[in-house]
Amino acid sequence: MTLRINRNTQLCMSLSGRPGNFGTRFQNYLYEALGLDYVYKAFTTRDLPAAIGGIRALGIRGCAISMPFKEACIPLVDEIDASAAAIESINTIVNDDGHLHAYNTDYIAVAKLIEQHKVSPQTTLALRGSGGMAKAVACALRDAGFRHGHIVARNEATGRKLAEASGFAWAPDMRGIEAELLINVTPLGMEGPEAQTLAFTEQEVERARVVFDVVALPSETPLIQLARTKGKPVITGAEVIALQAVEQFVLYTGVRPDDALIERAAAHARG
Amino acid sequence: MTLRINRNTQLCMSLSGRPGNFGTRFQNYLYEALGLDYVYKAFTTRDLPAAIGGIRALGIRGCAISMPFKEACIPLVDEIDASAAAIESINTIVNDDGHLHAYNTDYIAVAKLIEQHKVSPQTTLALRGSGGMAKAVACALRDAGFRHGHIVARNEATGRKLAEASGFAWAPDMRGIEAELLINVTPLGMEGPEAQTLAFTEQEVERARVVFDVVALPSETPLIQLARTKGKPVITGAEVIALQAVEQFVLYTGVRPDDALIERAAAHARG
Repeated sequence: MTLRINRNTQLCMSLSGRPGNFGTRFQNYLYEALGLDYVYKAFTTRDLPAAIGGIRALGIRGCAISMPFKEACIPLVDEIDASAAAIESINTIVNDDGHLHAYNTDYIAVAKLIEQHKVSPQTTLALRGSGGMAKAVACALRDAGFRHGHIVARNEATGRKLAEASGFAWAPDMRGIEAELLINVTPLGMEGPEAQTLAFTEQEVERARVVFDVVALPSETPLIQLARTKGKPVITGAEVIALQAVEQFVLYTGVRPDDALIERAAAHARG
Repeated sequence: MTLRINRNTQLCMSLSGRPGNFGTRFQNYLYEALGLDYVYKAFTTRDLPAAIGGIRALGIRGCAISMPFKEACIPLVDEIDASAAAIESINTIVNDDGHLHAYNTDYIAVAKLIEQHKVSPQTTLALRGSGGMAKAVACALRDAGFRHGHIVARNEATGRKLAEASGFAWAPDMRGIEAELLINVTPLGMEGPEAQTLAFTEQEVERARVVFDVVALPSETPLIQLARTKGKPVITGAEVIALQAVEQFVLYTGVRPDDALIERAAAHARG
């Protein structure tokens, strides 16, 4: 209840170009369920340095950082965790009494999901995409010991750059590539003009052992649906978005919710 | 409920050296009761320019300003209402899309209470105190047409300064002064070491026609209790604090609650 808010209530927030509701609903649900004296609210800004300065000056406990602010925040914080340094991209700021410590929980979440789903680092992979999230996924895989596979991106400049950064090969398309782990980090299959587009072909899915789609809206993309019909283990964007939000929650509060509660919070946040 | 907070919810806040709970409880109660998509939270800061910059950059809708920031905010806002200009003191900032407009609702509230209680501007007054709130009260009385009376303050420098600013005479104490309107704007009668101290003597109260005590915690000060036993009309600090908060609420939301709802919100906020 907002009626319980008092002078000691901690504010957490998000900054993004186009604020969504997932983080707000997810975090506030967990605060309520666990009786934590926190409240969460989404913001946008046209003045990032002043917004980050305000977080510091007002003692706002934590802030999720989304597009287009993930790189621009780097010079504005005081300390950068390995998770964010690895990919030069921030998605979380924790404010300890004016000291801003930056993290990337997308990276942390992908690393945890690969481990939870017991995907061996020996697996060869094909990762489609070369944007910021692709970098988080590729670097998390590299740091988990994955060494074999391709960054598949039509854009040669960003594709080669990410391939070099993450230690994989670059390819413009899937011709001639065989991969056991297929990863989509493009908008293919996302709500919008490419909602019906498969990020990988049926043959590619057939030959794969695991399919990972980072698209979260919807998380049951054509690719995930196809993989399920073929009995392939999947990792979904819904898992990524929920787990990265859980890691933010833990950084802000120091409390780790159990899996059943996380599932209820994620369902509430999606609903 | 915090569970209803979403991307469009407006945040209002307060900035003070020692945040209290009155404003938070009062504003959030009214938001809930009226179904307004707002939430309110108290803050403090050690970096006022960055805090005000954050309000602007984050699109925080409104901010109550308390001690010790009421004067220091003046160069940080974009526009100053007559209510704040009259006393060179801000207690409210309204953010219209990055444009910060400052007000003083203490001044507005005192002016309204004097009118509501039908105290004639012909009344002679004695106002004890010479701090920031004393200035708001004295200037509101001056601007309501009051011309006769004394600023009573042991501190000659601040007392004379306020007397000059407001057009009243200065006196170090009540000796030889007869006043129909007695006003206490000192901590006498407030919770703490001076809780049992009467701001005016029994004889002074006996001779007065109206007694106004700005102390709000408790609002039933020894002075107010004495005035009530003598059948004198009173204006209490509880009225000031509630009415100034209502004026803030109206500035933030554009909605004016009815008197019964204001009374419930004030009772909730005190309780």
